[in-house]
Amino acid sequence: MDQERAPEERRGRRGRRGAGETPVRAARRRGLRNPFTAQRAVSDDEIESLHRAALTVLENLGLVALSPEARAIFRAAGALVDEDSGMVRIGREIVEAALAAAPSEFIIRAGAAAHDLDYAPGALLFGPGAGCPNATDRERGRRPGSFRDFEELTRLAASFDAIHFLAPMAEPQDIAPALRHYAMTRCQLATSPKVAFTYSRGRAQVEDCFRMLMIGAGLDEAAFRAEPRTYTVINTNSPRQIDRSMAEGIIDHARWGQVSVITPFCLLGAMAPVTVAGALTLQHAEALAGVTLAQLAAPGAPVVYGNFASNVDMRSGAPAFGTPEHVKATLGAGQLARRIGLPWRASVGTSTNMADAQGAAETAFALWAAVLAGANMVIHSAGWLEGGLTHSYEKLILDIEMLESIAELCAPFEADEAARGLDAIAEVAPGGHFFAAAHTMTRYRTAFHEPIVAGTANLGQWTEAGAMPADARATSVWKARLAAFEPDGVSEERLAALDKFITRRTEAGGAPPGE
Amino acid sequence: MDQERAPEERRGRRGRRGAGETPVRAARRRGLRNPFTAQRAVSDDEIESLHRAALTVLENLGLVALSPEARAIFRAAGALVDEDSGMVRIGREIVEAALAAAPSEFIIRAGAAAHDLDYAPGALLFGPGAGCPNATDRERGRRPGSFRDFEELTRLAASFDAIHFLAPMAEPQDIAPALRHYAMTRCQLATSPKVAFTYSRGRAQVEDCFRMLMIGAGLDEAAFRAEPRTYTVINTNSPRQIDRSMAEGIIDHARWGQVSVITPFCLLGAMAPVTVAGALTLQHAEALAGVTLAQLAAPGAPVVYGNFASNVDMRSGAPAFGTPEHVKATLGAGQLARRIGLPWRASVGTSTNMADAQGAAETAFALWAAVLAGANMVIHSAGWLEGGLTHSYEKLILDIEMLESIAELCAPFEADEAARGLDAIAEVAPGGHFFAAAHTMTRYRTAFHEPIVAGTANLGQWTEAGAMPADARATSVWKARLAAFEPDGVSEERLAALDKFITRRTEAGGAPPGE
Repeated sequence: MDQERAPEERRGRRGRRGAGETPVRAARRRGLRNPFTAQRAVSDDEIESLHRAALTVLENLGLVALSPEARAIFRAAGALVDEDSGMVRIGREIVEAALAAAPSEFIIRAGAAAHDLDYAPGALLFGPGAGCPNATDRERGRRPGSFRDFEELTRLAASFDAIHFLAPMAEPQDIAPALRHYAMTRCQLATSPKVAFTYSRGRAQVEDCFRMLMIGAGLDEAAFRAEPRTYTVINTNSPRQIDRSMAEGIIDHARWGQVSVITPFCLLGAMAPVTVAGALTLQHAEALAGVTLAQLAAPGAPVVYGNFASNVDMRSGAPAFGTPEHVKATLGAGQLARRIGLPWRASVGTSTNMADAQGAAETAFALWAAVLAGANMVIHSAGWLEGGLTHSYEKLILDIEMLESIAELCAPFEADEAARGLDAIAEVAPGGHFFAAAHTMTRYRTAFHEPIVAGTANLGQWTEAGAMPADARATSVWKARLAAFEPDGVSEERLAALDKFITRRTEAGGAPPGE
Repeated sequence: MDQERAPEERRGRRGRRGAGETPVRAARRRGLRNPFTAQRAVSDDEIESLHRAALTVLENLGLVALSPEARAIFRAAGALVDEDSGMVRIGREIVEAALAAAPSEFIIRAGAAAHDLDYAPGALLFGPGAGCPNATDRERGRRPGSFRDFEELTRLAASFDAIHFLAPMAEPQDIAPALRHYAMTRCQLATSPKVAFTYSRGRAQVEDCFRMLMIGAGLDEAAFRAEPRTYTVINTNSPRQIDRSMAEGIIDHARWGQVSVITPFCLLGAMAPVTVAGALTLQHAEALAGVTLAQLAAPGAPVVYGNFASNVDMRSGAPAFGTPEHVKATLGAGQLARRIGLPWRASVGTSTNMADAQGAAETAFALWAAVLAGANMVIHSAGWLEGGLTHSYEKLILDIEMLESIAELCAPFEADEAARGLDAIAEVAPGGHFFAAAHTMTRYRTAFHEPIVAGTANLGQWTEAGAMPADARATSVWKARLAAFEPDGVSEERLAALDKFITRRTEAGGAPPGE
């Protein structure tokens, strides 16, 4: 075991190549297919029991739908509706018919085919941390999210291939709520061809966003309706309530052929039972209600089954992420998603307050959980701090480092005769080294994954460079990315059309968010 | 998506329980069985080709054995030996016979049955980072390892159930090399009943250690030989060389019925081919040579197939850990180990210089690789910094946090009717919360894994407490553990006998380390 480390002197025995040479390596970071076998947390029989328990919840207990239109849709399908309380009880045959109608896979079309999102079995799609009211970086500190943050973070998301779709990474609080959706949608379209996010903050805003997406893509209404072009995230108000704008978001996205990611946010012991099984039962019931509403509104509407269950700290009620309970709930959610045959979304997260070792460990555990659970879409996979209260520029970079590693793992290693390298093994004398072997020389430039921030400097070099923890080293990375960024969004002509639309709508007062 | 975070106000809606109450939760952290399906990096056919390529290396190219006794053993078995160069070429039939003789599982007996190490299929055994010449903590800084460090770190390893066996975590450089093994073995025996490590630093030292283990366990020689009681780690001098003390370590451990963990340290592009397949071919060949030597020395000797392959930074030659190449090599090694039917060891590591986000991410990736590859024994799973040059007290704590999470994942979540909690779901009104539900109240004390360092304090609380990154928060943990530590080693009487042995051997000059 004496040799199982890297003594200084070993490092010294190599210095052949200058630091100026840049390896050129084509890494595949899009169109990922999960290389791992989806793991189980419990038996298939137990998952079946959870599924049935969720059906029982919907049938016997029901959930409150605050949207009159949603209640009318459920009632028309045979659900029992109490208009006074808003309670909707949904028979299992209604749910089962909806599940039969929901597509098991679909594609969201991006502004460029390379960025299309293929929700097929085995697909692995990463999105950045979203919904943060604040932003932070090590140079400017923590502040309420502004449009500048929204734009910069969108540019960062655009500039990394391992981020597959856009998201509202920080809330642009310096823009009036009635106008904010214009700025967010315009920014996404102007920045990147990656699929844009649409908030379900009221019917008027959603339709505004759809109009802008049509202008951005140069599509008429029929063409826009024909294929998914955007996604929204629907959070139920757990337990057992769906607010009006959320229900209408499901209905509108379904009718326009767009994607709802229906995600109860079930914190064990807070908004959900304290057990993983109980939280998954509640989550499953609420997600099934949302899926059913989408299919009743428009049979065949593309929907994603959403999972975001983790535990709280029972001493404070504060949420925790990347915990064993989070991992187990994610694995169980994957089993439930496969049981009902829908593409599904998992969630990464951390409750740390800075991009430290806790944050990396929690993020890594939640990320591995999502990958091992076979999630198709992983939201909040990079950048979250403080349980989502803040988007950190440095954490974003550090987390993308992990996503790029996962992307790299999607390809097996080459194991053919040339890769096995018997010639090289024969060439190098016992106790020698392979630095100069022909097998090495022809491959070294592209042999290894190139990290973004992770370094191998020894203690002396690292100390001389300022003894910076990884989060400090990440600052220069995002700064360089932003400095070099060139928008790759829609044409000037379409941008002008978008601006015209925005001006007209702004003059009309915009669209206040719904309830 | 607005709701997918933890607003301050949500946290505020709970404050029922005082901070003084301590949840009491019995977590199972020993006797772990891996809950995950072992993953493949490449096809079984490709693994078979790698296995055959390794046999070809041994048969046609051979490896240099610097021990005359090892060469004699190989020669007697029919290998082709060149005494001038020390080259030994081993026919595949010799290797295959050795593999048939090696046990597929065994138990290393500890000082207490609860700490026995069961090397059975599916077993998951964690050991701390080992072999570090230096130690560091945030209070005393980085220094050459001393006996005090060795003892303190051994006590920390002893005090966490998720660390399953002892290891030489930091080198006690303040003790003369000829006497160091006495201090290390005595310390392990005096501290903990967990299985102790024995260095293979020359025949005389190994026998000294065995004598001490016998005294410590109160065993005569026959009883000691009858069952494994300790383990050693054998590093080949890659490529294709095995040094004298390493070869003799294999021979002696085999003949005394003790365990050799035979681990080539194959850094891709440095001591091994630049490809994962090439490095695994070399690693496999060298490990097979060691396994064969053990079986030739004592058929049926307990051996562990060792894996420690990662890449180097091709610009500096410095090793990197937790990389995609490290993960892939670990997965491939698991396939090779299963191909030959031996218990096997994987390795965690990081090249970071402090316990930062890089270190946590690299450690987490290497740890998940080991778990997903189905490793039975995971070495260096906590505490390494600087590619093993330094053992960090804080990193040790932070990494044990991850090991405890993995231990927790070894149990499925409860999914019976009570756990599904339909009553609780019925009890809580839509939009309400579960904090006060009966289902919660009866379970909250023990519902969740309790982290060691990870916190859920919000930004205000965390800032007030000093805005400490996780590594800074880990300092108080190891200090408290050391302050509370009570040795649980051998009896006073046996300690006295050990001291008598040490005095006698010291007066005779001790035992200088071998080559």
